[in-house]
Parts: sequence; structure tokens; C-alpha cells
Amino acid sequence: MSEKIRVFAPATIANVACGFDIMGLALEKVGDQLTIQKTDDERLTIGSIIGAENIPTDPTKNVCSVAIQAMLDHIGSKQGFHIDISKNISPGSGLGSSASSSAGAVYGANMLLGKPFTKKELVQFAMEGEKAASEKAHADNVAPSLLGGFTVIRSYDPLDIFSVHYPEELIATVVFPAVEVKTADAKKILKPEVALSDAIAQWGNVSALTAGLITEDFGLIERSLQDVIVEPVRSILIPCYQEMKQAGMDAGALGGNISGSGPSVFALSKGKETAEKVGQAMSAVLAKNGIAYELFISKINPVGCEIIN
Amino acid sequence: MSEKIRVFAPATIANVACGFDIMGLALEKVGDQLTIQKTDDERLTIGSIIGAENIPTDPTKNVCSVAIQAMLDHIGSKQGFHIDISKNISPGSGLGSSASSSAGAVYGANMLLGKPFTKKELVQFAMEGEKAASEKAHADNVAPSLLGGFTVIRSYDPLDIFSVHYPEELIATVVFPAVEVKTADAKKILKPEVALSDAIAQWGNVSALTAGLITEDFGLIERSLQDVIVEPVRSILIPCYQEMKQAGMDAGALGGNISGSGPSVFALSKGKETAEKVGQAMSAVLAKNGIAYELFISKINPVGCEIIN
Repeated sequence: MSEKIRVFAPATIANVACGFDIMGLALEKVGDQLTIQKTDDERLTIGSIIGAENIPTDPTKNVCSVAIQAMLDHIGSKQGFHIDISKNISPGSGLGSSASSSAGAVYGANMLLGKPFTKKELVQFAMEGEKAASEKAHADNVAPSLLGGFTVIRSYDPLDIFSVHYPEELIATVVFPAVEVKTADAKKILKPEVALSDAIAQWGNVSALTAGLITEDFGLIERSLQDVIVEPVRSILIPCYQEMKQAGMDAGALGGNISGSGPSVFALSKGKETAEKVGQAMSAVLAKNGIAYELFISKINPVGCEIIN
Repeated sequence: MSEKIRVFAPATIANVACGFDIMGLALEKVGDQLTIQKTDDERLTIGSIIGAENIPTDPTKNVCSVAIQAMLDHIGSKQGFHIDISKNISPGSGLGSSASSSAGAVYGANMLLGKPFTKKELVQFAMEGEKAASEKAHADNVAPSLLGGFTVIRSYDPLDIFSVHYPEELIATVVFPAVEVKTADAKKILKPEVALSDAIAQWGNVSALTAGLITEDFGLIERSLQDVIVEPVRSILIPCYQEMKQAGMDAGALGGNISGSGPSVFALSKGKETAEKVGQAMSAVLAKNGIAYELFISKINPVGCEIIN
């Protein structure tokens, strides 16, 4: 067993349209890289943090060490770890930045401990890391980052997560505008109550999206990528949102929505060629308005967290 | 083309647990029988009605003729039909009594007209019949009665219905207590707003139930047959509801809920043997409390409306 490993933890899209708070998917290539090393003392220490500012190095506040600590507490282990973090997902992008770090940390530590837990079992510990960053222990980013693919949280209490089959040709386009949307603001703007009729419309789409993914019915996926509850409220926080989404739809996207709590906006398309056209169309809207952006085109990452060289 | 046909239109369970207002399934054997005959004049007439009282014979009020009229209006036809109705589903049972009649009527008339419409296209006309009986044009009973199987209403506007694969071994138990629950009361008792957190819990289960059915994952079906929104409110209208449901669960049911707006209560089980034990346990609760009941054990009917001899 190697005493030091390097882990890739993918970025993720959560709040997949109608699947607010329950559906998430993992991206390829874009994600955090962590180097995790067993140490001889009982401490968890954070070494270098590259690629992002204002990430705490205090192990009681850093999501990586908090997540690993939760795992160690669960098995009563006093093992020490040293973690170096290379962040390739900007915090506050809506692409699960803290979730990737949490997921990668517990994935790596678990490997170094001889795999006492399955990836699915690691979700609960990664959630504790998420909690350190965002107050609430969400699973809709950490689950796809760990497991890869398209995941659904059936229930938080008890925690019950399952993976959904999806068509190979389903490609994500993500546009990350260089503006800040605070997750706390995005949460505050949501009303605690919703109309029953809207909730019913939403779960009609949730059922259809689930069925469309599993049966590879792109028509059903296209018709069900709707969100009558969160998008109308949160999209006002994102500059050019409607224009950007419309441009993506006009370019052939099946649908799209806010990624996480934004400001990243995602679209899903059938095939890479369409996804690229969608990306060009969406980013052109931002360029025209003088807003800097990053653009990612990605298959759904089927693997999730993995060891790299 | 025969000028007179006999149609069987199955009873249905709507509001399948978390799938309130969107999910329904068709039952075997129990259902309405209609005899539909082409006539030489332009009138729609209702002949005998067997098996239920207080069903209107006025063709502007009877669900069968109202539904057929909607279909005829759509194609500009003046064809007359005479309909005899044998009701084997009690109105007010929660098993889609008026929906079966509406579905069977348009199915039969469509056959006699040379099938201008698919079964799925007939749903919109059957909904007009439903509207005559219950003010609102619901599709969650007429769709499974027409199409058979397990159906989901993704959207009402535009109307978008799809069929979901389900495991062959999934068996329904239905207990119909001889008490009256007015649909109007059952609707009134629902609040127009729900907590966002409850809505999210519900659509987590909706996604899981859809996936569980399609992938034949009985564990997932069992965990997702939950309803945090409607059951807690409506179940108080049904005598011995909690005790009956618990007895069913103790006997091995995967889950259960109120069928439609009640008072029928359904359970779903893996295999006929379990479904029968569940039926015995549930009906024993009613017997103990001196409440008369009817009990049905049924596979999911894959066919829907059909011509019989």
C-alpha cells in the first residue's frame, strides 16, 4: 500500500433542472487534484493550496481535513494525513468546488487506510466537509464527485443515494461567468413554501427525466429538463441568464439551468458537436456583454474520484 | 367493421404514493363493461346502466357521451352512438370509476369509427368525460385505463404522458371500505402550498420510484413508496387507515397509500402470495372494526381498454 497518493476529484453539476437538491452529475477533466500522504503523528495538516485564495489551512476549517476527520472518528482511527490541494474549480462557481475537495480527500484517505469504506459510504463523510464550507450538509455535489455518473439523492434521512443510467451521447456544456453569486444569497432568495401545483409539475418532470435518462429517450429528456420552482427565482442573480439560455436552446441544447447555486449555467445536448455549438452560442452572449467567462464541454464522467499519477 | 362492440375498461389506481396527480396504474378483471353501437341518427344516447345508481342518463351529463362528443367534435363527425353501461367499479371508490367509463366509451367509439386516434390521443377526450364528473380534467386515471400498465403524466399543458416499464411480479392489493369519501372533500383538505423541503423529499422519491420500476429494483421501489404531502392530510378521512396500512406492511407489502382520493387503500407487493397475505391482513382490520369492504388482488393490467366478446 502506497503511503502517498494523488487523487482527481471531478467538478459536478448539481440541481439538474427539475431535480433541485436531488440530482447531480460529474464532469470530465475539470476538477480538483489532491496529494494525500499518511503521516506518523495523529495530526491532519493542510500543506500547499494552489489555484484559489481564501481557502482555510486550519484543519478544523478546511473541508478536506474536516471530511477526513469525520471518517476517522467513525472508525476510531488516529491516523494522521498531510494534504496538498490543487484547486481547478473556483470556489463560488456553482460547480461543487468544496464538494470536490471533500470527496477527493475522503476518497484518498480511504484508499490509504485500505478501503474500509465503499465510495457510497464515503458520501456521508464528504458531506461533513461540505458542511464546513456551506453550513448545510448537502450531498448533491459530493455524491456525483465520488461516484461519478448521474446520481440521485432519494432521501437525506436516512441518506439514500442511487446512480441512474444515462445515454453515452449526453454531453454537458458549462459556462462559468466571472461574477460572484453567494450561495447564501442564492439560498435566501428561495421561498420556504411552493404552490402544490408547481410541485406536481416539478415531480412530473423529475419522473420523466429519470425515465428519459434510463431508457435513453432524448425526446423525454428534452421535454423534462424544466424547472418551474428554482430557476425563475434564482436566474435573476445571474447576468444575461435568459439570453444565454435561449442562445443555447437555439443552438440545439436539450435544456439547461443554473449549475448548483450559480453563477455557472449548464446545458445538456445530444452529441459533442451540438454541445460545442451550444457553448459557442452561450459564451457569445457573455462576450457581447463584456463579461469574462470559462467554458467547459464535457461528457458525463462515469468514474468519479480516482487515483492519478 | 362491426357496428356494435363490447369494451372492457379497467379500474385504476391513481396517486401512486409519491406520484400524486401524475402516476397511475391499471388493474386486471375489475372494470366497467360498455356496449357501444353505431346508430343511424346523430344522437348520443345512454341505454341501460347496471351496477350503480345516480349515474346520469342525460347525454350532456353522462361521462361516456360527453367524452365521445369531445372526440366527435374534434373530427367534425355527426355519428350517433348508443351506449349501455355495466359498472363494476363503484363511483366514489377511488378506483377511477368515471375514468373507466370515459376511457371505455372513447375507446369503443374510436374503434367503430375505424381508429382515427391512437389510445394515447384518446386520453384528451376521455379527460373531457372526467371533467363532467369531477369538474377538473384529470388524466391520471383515464391514461392507465386506456393504455394499461403504469403511466406518468409529465405535463398537463401540453398534455404529455408516458408509460413506465414495471416488474412483472409487482402485484396490487386493493381494499375498498364501504364508506363514502367525497372527492370534493378530499380535494378541499389539501393545502394549496407545501413546504419546499417536503416537495424535494417527494420528488426524490418520485425519481427513485420511476428508476426502481424501470430497473426492477424492488428495494428502491420499497424505499420510495412514500408520500410526505398528501397521505398525512387525506388519510384522516379514511377509517382505520393507519392500522390497515401497518397491517399490510407487516404482512410484507412494499408500500401503499390511498388510491385516488379514497376511500380505497392500495398496497404493492412482490409476488401474488405476498399480495394475498397483505390483502388478508388489511381487510382483517376492517372486519374487526365492523366495516364492510371489497378486496381485489391484481397484477398490473398491461393492456388497458380492450374489446371483449
